[in-house]
Amino acid sequence: MITRKEYEEAQSRAAEYLEKAGIVLSPEEKKSMEVAEFGLGDLYNIGLQLVVYVNNERYCAKELILFPHQTCPEHYHPDIDGRPGKQETFRCRWGTVYLFVPGEETPDPHVQPPKGRERYYTARHEIVLKPGDQYTLPPKTKHWFKAGDEGAIVSEFSSMSVDEKDVFTDPEVERTTKIIE
Amino acid sequence: MITRKEYEEAQSRAAEYLEKAGIVLSPEEKKSMEVAEFGLGDLYNIGLQLVVYVNNERYCAKELILFPHQTCPEHYHPDIDGRPGKQETFRCRWGTVYLFVPGEETPDPHVQPPKGRERYYTARHEIVLKPGDQYTLPPKTKHWFKAGDEGAIVSEFSSMSVDEKDVFTDPEVERTTKIIE
Repeated sequence: MITRKEYEEAQSRAAEYLEKAGIVLSPEEKKSMEVAEFGLGDLYNIGLQLVVYVNNERYCAKELILFPHQTCPEHYHPDIDGRPGKQETFRCRWGTVYLFVPGEETPDPHVQPPKGRERYYTARHEIVLKPGDQYTLPPKTKHWFKAGDEGAIVSEFSSMSVDEKDVFTDPEVERTTKIIE
Repeated sequence: MITRKEYEEAQSRAAEYLEKAGIVLSPEEKKSMEVAEFGLGDLYNIGLQLVVYVNNERYCAKELILFPHQTCPEHYHPDIDGRPGKQETFRCRWGTVYLFVPGEETPDPHVQPPKGRERYYTARHEIVLKPGDQYTLPPKTKHWFKAGDEGAIVSEFSSMSVDEKDVFTDPEVERTTKIIE
């Protein structure tokens, strides 16, 4: 959980990152930006900020904002009601993001999973995304990602998002952030 | 039709617009950028530059670049093989774009259809999109759009694109650009 003040601070800080990258939000988008704290009480270590531009039955587009060294924990997108799981394309717009997927373990990755929770980070093949680089994940692919020293902004293009159905490897992760007023 | 030199000049110029807006392309994307001349021989009046980031069965994302006062001619996206026509969301990233859709005619629009071809521009309800503004078009909606004085960059998020099936109001428009070597 997170206090309202912490939530709004993270929103403002993420809005500054977008501004640095030349990405303009509407006033409503700034207000409705999601801060995902993942229930672990350590937002600037394990967390993610999201702006959803559009999400309908056919497609979805978001901006993901990561603070320096912030990690989005390992998860996959399951099939839902017989529809294949979400497929997504990550395109780095600003900063550097390290994306980990299943496959041959990268021997000397640039970044490590969050300390103390390494066992919940099973995908160990590292893909480095800098501005202009992108990577498409097939449905049901376990993945996690972490920003470099500057933080990162990543555009996500995908089929419909149903975030609350995401399956996380870490059993303590909760996708929905509880805000204390 | 358009010469190879004209095609490459338009690509370079569009790449400069993206750079001004802080949008980074890979070297391959710069080379494969599409210049749509629409068969009318007047690219800087009726034309469009496109970078396709991803286009698959489930979703599509593109960057559309328009030079000052350049118009993308009126068209709609038909149903294909029993699948509903392409649905798309236009999000202005830079500059100003004037999008025209069916509905009440805007009495004093900011821009006009290309001279001499007005009869092929039947959608007359104007929507002004500036950076941070977006608009979603339902399938099979006739639409056209034109950039303002600075030009415009528009992100397009959509279901799968099958551009060659687009139906244009102007019978002389050809979606595929012929390049003279």
